[in-house]
Amino acid sequence: MEKLLKRLIEKNKHMARHGKVASYIPVLGKASPNDIGICIMDMDGNIYGSGNYRNKFTLQSISKVMALILALLDRGEEEVFSKVGMKPTTEAFNSLYRMDLPDKWIPSNPMLNSGAIITTSLIKGKGREKSDRILELIRDITSNFNIDYEEETYRSEKKTADRNRAIAYLLRDMNLLDGNVEEVLDAYFRQCSIEVDCVDLARIGLFFANKCKSYNIERGEHMATLAVTIMSLCGMYGFSGEYAVKVGVPSKSGVSGGILGVVPNRFGIGVYGPALDRYGNSIVGCKIMEELSKELNLNIFE
Amino acid sequence: MEKLLKRLIEKNKHMARHGKVASYIPVLGKASPNDIGICIMDMDGNIYGSGNYRNKFTLQSISKVMALILALLDRGEEEVFSKVGMKPTTEAFNSLYRMDLPDKWIPSNPMLNSGAIITTSLIKGKGREKSDRILELIRDITSNFNIDYEEETYRSEKKTADRNRAIAYLLRDMNLLDGNVEEVLDAYFRQCSIEVDCVDLARIGLFFANKCKSYNIERGEHMATLAVTIMSLCGMYGFSGEYAVKVGVPSKSGVSGGILGVVPNRFGIGVYGPALDRYGNSIVGCKIMEELSKELNLNIFE
Amino acid sequence: MEKLLKRLIEKNKHMARHGKVASYIPVLGKASPNDIGICIMDMDGNIYGSGNYRNKFTLQSISKVMALILALLDRGEEEVFSKVGMKPTTEAFNSLYRMDLPDKWIPSNPMLNSGAIITTSLIKGKGREKSDRILELIRDITSNFNIDYEEETYRSEKKTADRNRAIAYLLRDMNLLDGNVEEVLDAYFRQCSIEVDCVDLARIGLFFANKCKSYNIERGEHMATLAVTIMSLCGMYGFSGEYAVKVGVPSKSGVSGGILGVVPNRFGIGVYGPALDRYGNSIVGCKIMEELSKELNLNIFE
Amino acid sequence: MEKLLKRLIEKNKHMARHGKVASYIPVLGKASPNDIGICIMDMDGNIYGSGNYRNKFTLQSISKVMALILALLDRGEEEVFSKVGMKPTTEAFNSLYRMDLPDKWIPSNPMLNSGAIITTSLIKGKGREKSDRILELIRDITSNFNIDYEEETYRSEKKTADRNRAIAYLLRDMNLLDGNVEEVLDAYFRQCSIEVDCVDLARIGLFFANKCKSYNIERGEHMATLAVTIMSLCGMYGFSGEYAVKVGVPSKSGVSGGILGVVPNRFGIGVYGPALDRYGNSIVGCKIMEELSKELNLNIFE
Repeated sequence: MEKLLKRLIEKNKHMARHGKVASYIPVLGKASPNDIGICIMDMDGNIYGSGNYRNKFTLQSISKVMALILALLDRGEEEVFSKVGMKPTTEAFNSLYRMDLPDKWIPSNPMLNSGAIITTSLIKGKGREKSDRILELIRDITSNFNIDYEEETYRSEKKTADRNRAIAYLLRDMNLLDGNVEEVLDAYFRQCSIEVDCVDLARIGLFFANKCKSYNIERGEHMATLAVTIMSLCGMYGFSGEYAVKVGVPSKSGVSGGILGVVPNRFGIGVYGPALDRYGNSIVGCKIMEELSKELNLNIFE
Repeated sequence: MEKLLKRLIEKNKHMARHGKVASYIPVLGKASPNDIGICIMDMDGNIYGSGNYRNKFTLQSISKVMALILALLDRGEEEVFSKVGMKPTTEAFNSLYRMDLPDKWIPSNPMLNSGAIITTSLIKGKGREKSDRILELIRDITSNFNIDYEEETYRSEKKTADRNRAIAYLLRDMNLLDGNVEEVLDAYFRQCSIEVDCVDLARIGLFFANKCKSYNIERGEHMATLAVTIMSLCGMYGFSGEYAVKVGVPSKSGVSGGILGVVPNRFGIGVYGPALDRYGNSIVGCKIMEELSKELNLNIFE
Repeated sequence: MEKLLKRLIEKNKHMARHGKVASYIPVLGKASPNDIGICIMDMDGNIYGSGNYRNKFTLQSISKVMALILALLDRGEEEVFSKVGMKPTTEAFNSLYRMDLPDKWIPSNPMLNSGAIITTSLIKGKGREKSDRILELIRDITSNFNIDYEEETYRSEKKTADRNRAIAYLLRDMNLLDGNVEEVLDAYFRQCSIEVDCVDLARIGLFFANKCKSYNIERGEHMATLAVTIMSLCGMYGFSGEYAVKVGVPSKSGVSGGILGVVPNRFGIGVYGPALDRYGNSIVGCKIMEELSKELNLNIFE
Repeated sequence: MEKLLKRLIEKNKHMARHGKVASYIPVLGKASPNDIGICIMDMDGNIYGSGNYRNKFTLQSISKVMALILALLDRGEEEVFSKVGMKPTTEAFNSLYRMDLPDKWIPSNPMLNSGAIITTSLIKGKGREKSDRILELIRDITSNFNIDYEEETYRSEKKTADRNRAIAYLLRDMNLLDGNVEEVLDAYFRQCSIEVDCVDLARIGLFFANKCKSYNIERGEHMATLAVTIMSLCGMYGFSGEYAVKVGVPSKSGVSGGILGVVPNRFGIGVYGPALDRYGNSIVGCKIMEELSKELNLNIFE
C-alpha cells in the first residue's frame, strides 16, 4: 500500500504547477505548492502514509462536516433541515444565489458557507464554546489532544471576512440565524482554523467509514450515512459532480488543500496538497484520489 | 421477496391521496392515482413483482438516461460533456436558469430538459431515427419487442411543448444544439412516449446493475457507472438530494409515475405509481423505495 | 440650424471608428460605418437636414414605439399593461431575466423584445396584417407612401431568430401571448424591417412632439405622452439612464443605427449612424444628440 | 391654490385605508395612517400648504438625493459614477440582485440602498461627519436650523439593519466601499433619521427647481438637472415607471410617507402621508401628486 501511495504521488505531483495556493488570507499563501501527502487508515487501524502526510494545515471547509454532525446531535434533523437543505447545487461555495428572492428560501446544503454558518449557529454553546465542541470532537475521534486552533489563520480569516459577514447578516435578516452574528462568525472562523495533518484526517475518515461506532454518538450509524451522502453530493465545491463521476469516494475538501475521504466500511483517507484547482480543491489531491479509487476499487457508484 | 413487496405496497399505498397525477397533457391525467406496482429483478434473472406492476406507462424523463448512453456511445464523453455538464443542481427540471447570462454556459446535467434535449440532438440519425435508436436499445435490453411509442402521448407532448421549444431555440442560439430544432424536439417527445411496464424498467435497471455486461456496449462498465452516478446525483428532479439521503438507490423518475432503480451488482428495480409529489416523483414510489432500501440494505452510501 | 447640424456632424463623425455596425444579420453588416445623418423638423413644418440624412435604413427596435401605440389603440391601456409593464430596467433588450421564476411575471416594458413581441401580438389582425397596420400608420404620419418593408432584412431576421423565437414560446407558455407564435414573430420581423430615412423619422418625432394632433388618434395627446415617457425611461436599451442624464431628449434607437427623437411641443428628430456602441445605439448619433440638446436646450429634465 | 390642495386632500384621503404604515422599525409604526399634508412653494417664495403639512417625519430614502449631491461635490462625477450607476431598474430598493455575479458589478443607481450606502461613503468626513454635512446642507437650503436627527428613529434603524449591514459588507467585499463599514452605516442611518415637515421638503424641492441658484454649489445647475433626472427615472422605488407615466413630476419618496417633488423652474413640493402602497410610497401622496400634476400641468413629459 505504501508503495502504491508513493507511486501515485510521484506520478502526479508535477500537476501542482497547474494549481494555485489560496491567497485570500496571507497565512494560507505561505504553503508550499509542491507539498503533497496522503494517509490511509483501514478498519483494523493500520496506517499507511506517504509524502508530506505529517504536514499541518487548517481544516477550513472540512470543518463543515463536523459542524453538521454536532448541529444534528444538538438540535435533531427536523430543526436543522428546516434551516438548511440537503440539495446539491452548482452554485459557488460563497454564493448568495437566490438569497434575494422573496419566497421561503434556505441555503441548499450545509457544505455551502451560508449553510455551514447556520449549522455552526445551531451548535449549543455561545461563541467560542461552539467551536470548542468541534475541536473536542475532533480530538476525541483522532485521540490527538495536540490538535488546536491555528491562531494566525483564525485572526486573518476574521479580519478579511466581509463576504461571510454579509452572508451571516442576510441569514439573520431571513430569520435563519439566531443570536449574535459576530459570535457565530467567531465560532465559524475558529472551526476553520483547527489544524490537523493527514493522519488526523484519515482517522476522521475512518470514524465515518466505521459508522461512528465505538464513539458515544446517538444514532451514530445514521449520522455517518448522512454525512457520507452529503459529502458525496456536495463535498467538493463546484466540482462535486465531476468528482463523483471520476472518483466516487465521498469526500470533503478545504481551501488549505486538505481532502477528507470516506470509503464506507473500508478506509479513512487524508490528503494534503495546497495547490488548488479553480474550484478550490487540491489539484494533485483530486488526481491521486481518482487513481487510488481505480486501483483499490473505492468507487461507491460501481 | 414478493411478500415484502406486497407488504410495502399495502402499508404505503394510502399516501397516494397526498399526490397528484400529472395533467399538463391530458393523456397523463387519465392514469389511476391509486395504482401502485413494483418489480425487482436479481442478478440471476429472478423476477419478483407485486401490485400493478404490469400496468403500462410512458418513460418520460426516464428516457433521458438512455439518451445519455447513446449520445456517449455516438459522440464520446469529451464532446457530450462539452455541451452538457455533470453537475447536480437545485434548479427545476424545466429551468432556464442562467441561460440568460453572457458567460459560457452549458446545462448543468443531462437529467434536466435542457441537457436531455442536447443529448438527444447528439444521437446519430435524423429526427425519428434518434428516438428509434433509443427504442431499439430498450427493446434489446428488455428482450421485449412489443415495446413501442404511445402515439397519443407523443402527439400531446408535441402540441403542448412551448417551454421545451423555447429551451431548444435558446440552446441553438447558444450554439449548443445543431440541426433542425423541430426534428430534435420530435425525437425528444418520441423518446418520452416509449411505453413500458415495471418488468421492463427492472430489466433496464438490471442492465445497469450488471454493468452493461453481455450487451455489445463499448466501455459498458464505465457507461454503467456513469449513468448510475448521474442518477444518484440528479435523477429525482429537485428531490435528488433528499432521496439520496433517505433512499440511497441510484434512480431516475418520470412524470408518468415510473421510477427506474439500480442497485449495482445486485438488483434492477421498476416502480409505478402515477400520484406525484410536488417535485414530480411518484409519491408512493419514493416511500416504498425508502422502506425497501432499509429492508434490503440497498443504500450505496452506507 | 443647418449650419449647426453640419458642425455637429463634422465635429463628431470621427467617433464612428469606436463603434461597430450590427452584424447579427448579414444585410445590416453592409451599412457604411462612417455614414451619419440628422434631420430636425419644427412645429411649423420646417425641415433641416445634414449629412446622410436621406440614406435609408430599417426601423428595427424603433418600430416598438409604433407597435405600442397600435396595441393601446386596439386593446386599451388596461389589457396592454396587464401583459407588459411600464418599468424601466437594467436588463438587456433580449433578456430572459426572471422569465424563469414561478411568480406572476410580465416583461418590464414594451421596449424589450419580450414586451414588444407582446404588443405586436395585441395588434388586431392576423400575421402580416399586424405589421401592415404599423406600415400604414407610418405612411400616414410621414405622408410618405413609398415607405415599405425591406425584404432582405425581413427574411434574414426571420432566419436567425432563435432567441426571439425562444422568447415568444416562453411568453406563450406563460399565457402572455395568444395565437400562433410563428405568425406573431412574422409580424414582428416585418415591422422591424420597415425602411425609412431621417426625414421620415423626424416626421414621426414631430407626430409625437405635436401630441398626435391632426391625426385621427383616440386620446392622442395621452398616447403621445405615454410614448414619450416610456421612450425617456427605456428607449435607449441599457444606456437609457445615462442618455437621460446626458441628453434628456425622449428617444428610441434601433440596431440599424437610427434614433427617433421627440422634443415635446418643439421638434421631431431623426438621426442615422450605423456604427453602434456596446449597447446597440448609434455611437455618433448619441454624441450629436448630446451636443444638440445643449445647444438648443432640449433637455426635458432641465 | 390652497383651495385646490384642500380639495385634493379631501377627495383622496379615504385611500389611506388601502395603505399601510411602515413597521419594520417600531417608531415608524406610530404614525397616524390618516394624516395627509401637502405644501407647494413657487419661484417667488410663496408657500401654500394644506392638511397636516406641519407634521414632522423622517427623510428616510429622500436623504439619498442629498447624499448623491454631496458625494458629487466632494468626489466629482467620474469617481461617483464609477462606483454606482445611473441606470433605472425594476429591482427592489433593498435588492442584492446580481451582487452574486463574478463580473464587474456596481449598484444600478444611487436611489437603491446599495447605491446610497456608496454615495454616503464617498461624502468627505468620518462617520457622523458625513451625515452632519447632509444635515447642514438641508438646514442651509431650508433656512431652518431647528432641523435635526430624530434620535429614536436613528437608534431603531441601527438596531434592525441586518440587510443593510449585509449589503455594506458585500460592497466592501467588492471593493466598492472603503473604510469602516459600521461608521458608514452609522452615517447612513443618521441621514435617514433627519426630521422635516412638508414646508422643509417643498423648500428642498424649490432648491432643485431653481437649479441650486443663490447657493454656493459648484456647477449647481448641472447638479440640479442630474438630481432631477435620476429622481425621474428611479425616485419612487419599484413604482418609478408607472409614476413617471401617471404623474411625470420628478420625485423622491421615503418609507416614512414623505415625497419630495420638483417641477423644474416652477415649484418645489412636499407631501406627507404615512400610509404606504406595496412599493413603499405614500398611497394618498401618489394619488394627490397625480391629480395635482393634471390640474397644474406639471408633467415634464408632456
